[in-house]
Amino acid sequence: MNKQIDLYFDFTSPYSYIAAERIEAIAQTAGWSVNYSPTLLGFIFKEIGGGPLTTMPRKGDYSINDFSRTARFHGLTLSFPKKFPVNTVAAARTALWVKAEHPQQLGDFVRAVFRAYFVGGEDISEAATIAKCAAGVGLDGAAAAAANDDPRWKDAMRAAVAASNDVKMFGAPYFVINGEAFWGNDRLDQVERWITTGPF
Amino acid sequence: MNKQIDLYFDFTSPYSYIAAERIEAIAQTAGWSVNYSPTLLGFIFKEIGGGPLTTMPRKGDYSINDFSRTARFHGLTLSFPKKFPVNTVAAARTALWVKAEHPQQLGDFVRAVFRAYFVGGEDISEAATIAKCAAGVGLDGAAAAAANDDPRWKDAMRAAVAASNDVKMFGAPYFVINGEAFWGNDRLDQVERWITTGPF
Repeated sequence: MNKQIDLYFDFTSPYSYIAAERIEAIAQTAGWSVNYSPTLLGFIFKEIGGGPLTTMPRKGDYSINDFSRTARFHGLTLSFPKKFPVNTVAAARTALWVKAEHPQQLGDFVRAVFRAYFVGGEDISEAATIAKCAAGVGLDGAAAAAANDDPRWKDAMRAAVAASNDVKMFGAPYFVINGEAFWGNDRLDQVERWITTGPF
Repeated sequence: MNKQIDLYFDFTSPYSYIAAERIEAIAQTAGWSVNYSPTLLGFIFKEIGGGPLTTMPRKGDYSINDFSRTARFHGLTLSFPKKFPVNTVAAARTALWVKAEHPQQLGDFVRAVFRAYFVGGEDISEAATIAKCAAGVGLDGAAAAAANDDPRWKDAMRAAVAASNDVKMFGAPYFVINGEAFWGNDRLDQVERWITTGPF
């Protein structure tokens, strides 16, 4: 058995931010690892329809309140960003560079980007913001910014989107554990039991 | 402060069944009561768009697996019904009769209907099934069936749908606690904390 949780997410997803803050403790306690897999929800929605939660009648207003309340419920801070949703191509491409070249820093980099957006109110669509996040976790900011323009990481991004389509992702965060899919920060309680005491 | 959780639901909603099984223990521990408020999701969807989860690309297949898995997670049984979604007008009208005439039996009646559908595989669109559920909790089955054709409960049904629209319901189950809305069985953990230690 592969003791790895595949976590598919988009950096613009509030519930993915919350899940990214919670999952390490859950995984580590059970002796599992997290495979952070950034993708682009826009391409998923092109495939199957759908769109940002916040644009939906009633559910949109509800969600904006629920994002912050759910964060507080877990002892976290979340300020709904002025620019939402945001273009996450630069963030995701750079994350793929980190994943390939500096895998030990990946989790911290992912959380640094999420916090820049959901706590710091920064514009994570800008390569400069992403470079700063990279530098903040001990990586080379200039190399991180360069990765965004490198065809290698553009290709990796297309492959990452294809991979998230292959596992039938339809929303974020989306966890896959040896073929079993769990959708949403709210499913981390089931993920925890699944990796701790086995499938139920 | 009104120590009452308003629970809006549709009898065809799997996550509402799970929530109805869990909420009494949560409410009673905190000294709160549950105001069971049946409505008809079809009319909500007419108002704001949307439709059954199970018809959505990818999310549909996911949900059918998640319904049963989430039930098992909470120690419950849920067999996805052959007829889904089902017409719940008869069930809801009769529930409104129980609510007005036999309020002490309402919670048990609600759970009896949910179990008939999600555990017993019965067709709850039929008045005979609903009458049997009523009889099973000590009510007059014939009176329950008659309520379904009584203009009084047809009017009550329209008022109930209007009330669920007024609180901006967009999916089920939908909880309202002194104006604060919580959507989904997954939010019962937040509901529990909200009524136990106050708003957060």
